[in-house]
Amino acid sequence: MEKVIVVGAGLVGSLLAIFLKKRGFEVEVFERNPDIREHLQVSGRSINLTLCERGLRALDIVGAGEAVRDLSVPAYGRLVHDVAGNLTFQPYGNRNEAIYSISRSGLNAYLLDLAESGYGLEVQFNEKCVGLDLSSATIEMQNRVSGHISRHKADRIIGADGAFSAIRFHLIKTYGFNYSQQYWEQGYKELTVALGAESGWLSERNALHIWPRRQYMLIGFPNVDGSFTCSLHIPLKGDPSFQSITTEKDLTRFVQASFPDAAERFANLAEEYFTNPPNYMITIKCSPWSHGDRILLIGDAVHAIYPSYGQGANAGFEDCAVLDTLIGEYGDDWHSIFLRFEEARKANTDAIADLCVEHFIELRDDVGNPAFQLRKQIERKLSRLYPDRYKDLYSMITFTCIPYAQAIETDRTQRAIRERLLKLAQKNNGIDNPELDRAMESLMREYPGLAHAAAD
Amino acid sequence: MEKVIVVGAGLVGSLLAIFLKKRGFEVEVFERNPDIREHLQVSGRSINLTLCERGLRALDIVGAGEAVRDLSVPAYGRLVHDVAGNLTFQPYGNRNEAIYSISRSGLNAYLLDLAESGYGLEVQFNEKCVGLDLSSATIEMQNRVSGHISRHKADRIIGADGAFSAIRFHLIKTYGFNYSQQYWEQGYKELTVALGAESGWLSERNALHIWPRRQYMLIGFPNVDGSFTCSLHIPLKGDPSFQSITTEKDLTRFVQASFPDAAERFANLAEEYFTNPPNYMITIKCSPWSHGDRILLIGDAVHAIYPSYGQGANAGFEDCAVLDTLIGEYGDDWHSIFLRFEEARKANTDAIADLCVEHFIELRDDVGNPAFQLRKQIERKLSRLYPDRYKDLYSMITFTCIPYAQAIETDRTQRAIRERLLKLAQKNNGIDNPELDRAMESLMREYPGLAHAAAD
Repeated sequence: MEKVIVVGAGLVGSLLAIFLKKRGFEVEVFERNPDIREHLQVSGRSINLTLCERGLRALDIVGAGEAVRDLSVPAYGRLVHDVAGNLTFQPYGNRNEAIYSISRSGLNAYLLDLAESGYGLEVQFNEKCVGLDLSSATIEMQNRVSGHISRHKADRIIGADGAFSAIRFHLIKTYGFNYSQQYWEQGYKELTVALGAESGWLSERNALHIWPRRQYMLIGFPNVDGSFTCSLHIPLKGDPSFQSITTEKDLTRFVQASFPDAAERFANLAEEYFTNPPNYMITIKCSPWSHGDRILLIGDAVHAIYPSYGQGANAGFEDCAVLDTLIGEYGDDWHSIFLRFEEARKANTDAIADLCVEHFIELRDDVGNPAFQLRKQIERKLSRLYPDRYKDLYSMITFTCIPYAQAIETDRTQRAIRERLLKLAQKNNGIDNPELDRAMESLMREYPGLAHAAAD
Repeated sequence: MEKVIVVGAGLVGSLLAIFLKKRGFEVEVFERNPDIREHLQVSGRSINLTLCERGLRALDIVGAGEAVRDLSVPAYGRLVHDVAGNLTFQPYGNRNEAIYSISRSGLNAYLLDLAESGYGLEVQFNEKCVGLDLSSATIEMQNRVSGHISRHKADRIIGADGAFSAIRFHLIKTYGFNYSQQYWEQGYKELTVALGAESGWLSERNALHIWPRRQYMLIGFPNVDGSFTCSLHIPLKGDPSFQSITTEKDLTRFVQASFPDAAERFANLAEEYFTNPPNYMITIKCSPWSHGDRILLIGDAVHAIYPSYGQGANAGFEDCAVLDTLIGEYGDDWHSIFLRFEEARKANTDAIADLCVEHFIELRDDVGNPAFQLRKQIERKLSRLYPDRYKDLYSMITFTCIPYAQAIETDRTQRAIRERLLKLAQKNNGIDNPELDRAMESLMREYPGLAHAAAD
């Protein structure tokens, strides 16, 4: 029986191991960190992410979709907070679709439970990769508790070990490996808004909350227990920045001035701010994703992206489903599986990486703008009147499995239509007027608009 | 006394160590390879490079310029070979300037001799960096012969350890380190044309020879002993490529068809081709170049570029001179020295990296074209008539020390002038006609053209 070693038991590694076990392989899983389930309560950090169609569809294949939805809070739109405390709701979808807010560690714990109890996998924790022989697919692990070093040989080794992948650090030294890592000049820290308070904006639980302030922003993710986990995004340097806010007084003054309706709600603002290290935002692109027919990289190890579009975990889960399909098609021809996998995914993950950079700036700078909101209204009207022919980009990325690059390409072809309509809407102070309706009809008559239908 | 460890005793490491010793520092030098001087005759490979104004000016500061010129062959232009064996000479400069063709290992050996005999430095060979503590500037070296591991602490550690820098591999794992490495789909192998033959093109020793053939090319560098070292540039994959040429018959057929006037001149064509591994072409960009005020990267470790513009060693030598100047200005304020160094260099080395990619394509595809040759003639005429106001890009890069980015920017502003004149020259079948002269005068009247004068 073919033996596959999966390095990394984070979100993608856990799900990948399940997919492989389901295919009948002997699967060994190594994770450099301690078992996250033993520390769920200790760390005090609940980093949240959102799942959407792509991720959930992959989870459904291994029977994990329903349980994961139960661990999540559906959010039907974003609620934008201005400095005066006014709220504007922007629905995500046009048909009441939701994205699912979930604790990263909670999701990881669930997948580990499923891997062990549901699929009979055993995950070895505290095992750090300290060596890799690429040609024989032999990996050297060191136990971080005992210091014990062990060697493991497999037919395939798949690195699902994240943005700082140890497996990739071996590939980076091989000839012909193209690689880039680019940090953003901003980072973020998690801050908790405690459960219990039911008044004001806190009662709006089925939404992501966002306080866009141009150079910085706050995002609030709902938790199942009624609390919110917020991400405070600010620059790493300059003013304000993680460097400039160094005392409790600085922090309080900054938060009260910038996010007054959130300021009083934080459970342990100063403690969390000064204890939690900032999370950095990094974009990683590379190629090739494999070495011969023995070594493969997957997930953040080959395409780390900003969290701004909520796609990191979804892209990684989609990777797993695509790889699984290719294994089904190509059997033991791993050379073809690995090449087809990169062919199927790389253009798409590069495209979503670039989109995440754009979208981060849009979230921070534009979502509060009248023009942005008017554009969204136009897109909603277009989607309502031409449901099979016009899909806005956010919906294609989030509520379909249209390949990322194709969604972005479709959006580009639609740009001329909505920009033309935006001008008319600005001129006529709104989207409900005969001139705009006539222009919309005429523009849509000429627009083929079906490029994405087949893949949806 | 301040102690500086230089990692790498290649071209840049050797010269840097000399500069630092000259400033009065205690300098330790480690090199992972054996002493190149013991293997000069053994390897059979003479990889050539060319030195120009920037590199020579840096060498002059430490008193190495004259000796290095004596080890070099001046080349006053490129001699382009077409398939029929016709030769076209393209002078590099407008005032009989030359670039200097020299054996890489010969130059390195000379600098090592100078470091030891002239400056009392001791270089430790076969010492491979296996660990680095960034904050305390402590480096762990393993001797590749004895296996012995030693630790060395310094006030500063400077990584001059090339495109595959071990020091950089420690920095790449630190937060905020932006990095990219991109390989080209072509590579090259060195092939020797033996000395002795004095007839035909071989008597043209004061030129670089080039056989541009679009998808591939051959370049011949003169050696002081009368032989030539050629670089055969072909794709890594496809046809023809290193992959497709696998037998002596394939090789002979390819070389005879593509470079007929060179084919019979190779000393050991098949042996060299099948023994020498291909050299890959890689572009490396990164930032920051330093970590705190203790660790710095220099040379190819931070800006590996294609060899197409003959700038790799020159850019690295220029680094050394710039760093030396900054040490003179900022004394023991290493924080400022390191920041100013990157400020002074990075935009320039990024610019030359991009230019090398463009120039590689130009060399391979365009130097044989009538339009390319006409454009060169126009630039020569402009430089002759307006010597203080028009400088062609190749001259600025090669025969001045104008910062790379500024040279490229100046060239951009000149583009409109020469493209306008090119059209007139094409229309009038040449550069000597009244219409073109009038246009040149009028265009140059409006062109300020002095942006680069101060830095020249």
